[in-house]
Amino acid sequence: MADYSTHTVGRLSLYRRLLEDHLPEGTEQIFSHQLAELAGASSAQVRRDLMYLDYEGSPKRGYRVQDLLAALSKALDAPTLQPVALIGMGNLGQAIIGFFSGARPRLAITACFDNDKAKTGQTFSAVPCYHVSQLEAVVARQGIITAIITTPAQAAQAVVDRLVAAGVRGILSYAHVPLKTPPGVFVEEGDMTVALEKTAWFARKA
Amino acid sequence: MADYSTHTVGRLSLYRRLLEDHLPEGTEQIFSHQLAELAGASSAQVRRDLMYLDYEGSPKRGYRVQDLLAALSKALDAPTLQPVALIGMGNLGQAIIGFFSGARPRLAITACFDNDKAKTGQTFSAVPCYHVSQLEAVVARQGIITAIITTPAQAAQAVVDRLVAAGVRGILSYAHVPLKTPPGVFVEEGDMTVALEKTAWFARKA
Repeated sequence: MADYSTHTVGRLSLYRRLLEDHLPEGTEQIFSHQLAELAGASSAQVRRDLMYLDYEGSPKRGYRVQDLLAALSKALDAPTLQPVALIGMGNLGQAIIGFFSGARPRLAITACFDNDKAKTGQTFSAVPCYHVSQLEAVVARQGIITAIITTPAQAAQAVVDRLVAAGVRGILSYAHVPLKTPPGVFVEEGDMTVALEKTAWFARKA
Repeated sequence: MADYSTHTVGRLSLYRRLLEDHLPEGTEQIFSHQLAELAGASSAQVRRDLMYLDYEGSPKRGYRVQDLLAALSKALDAPTLQPVALIGMGNLGQAIIGFFSGARPRLAITACFDNDKAKTGQTFSAVPCYHVSQLEAVVARQGIITAIITTPAQAAQAVVDRLVAAGVRGILSYAHVPLKTPPGVFVEEGDMTVALEKTAWFARKA
């Protein structure tokens, strides 16, 4: 696994999503400048990012889309299924679990947690919901190192501390509160504010 | 209003959120390298972005946080309340409306829409929910130019066409489907996949 920066990994993930969703049906080849335009990056940036992959394009014919997708998946995905825990089954938790259901063969939410007994014992998008008291046991049993936090802000730090103690090393947080974690734990903040503020700004400018 | 790029506006919005949420209580001054570290950008990038603002820092003492926040708000916010429509009151719509409620004085979701008569006539986080048949009338009456789409994928394009015809110029889409819009309409794709894939990648690497 190459030593990518967070920004590189983010762009590789974006390239994959764009290639999957935004090409006209039947597109077989793509040039770096076309992918750059879709991604809002420079062609030089795209070429630099793709140089890390186990696939080389041809300057004349660009990149074969299927081969590029395969190389991106090889770079981004775990060799086997990477299970993800989701904590907090309010509206956002339920929306996220529905969204990711079946989206990736090797990255899936396999356990979700809440402290509301009306929710525990149920399934959400076929994912079993456990009481949060079972967090450590389920994380250990499934070998989970990745988690998504959609708890209320005031509950987030305590959940994060327990996840980290149980071996979790990557946390995507939608709790909208600063989180303390030891070195070596990666925290990504899910952000809806920036997206809305950009949209509002350009709506006024149009 | 300066002629920012989408990336610049995104970073200015991020700087504001970081200054609001991630400084120790009582922090009065900040240097560009500190803000850069919080934002995952270079100091040079931060200084370049902040040069556009109506406020100058001092190389010796850095930026006064309160003045910088005021200048960021002046650059980012509309002079008066900018109303936002949200279409699709499923789990994600309800999560988003709760999250933005009261978050910004001059940017607020003021109308939401669904086609489920069990939802219309209700309020969500004090925002009235209208039947989607009233979309054009409400958008015109409130002077709405900004919208968030959280409909199912197959419903999104028809809603976007109606919004654009009614005068909307900025759309934040969580419908996860490519959307066609005429030139001059800004579309931002809300993306949860990139955030999770980054988190999963760095969890494995840790």
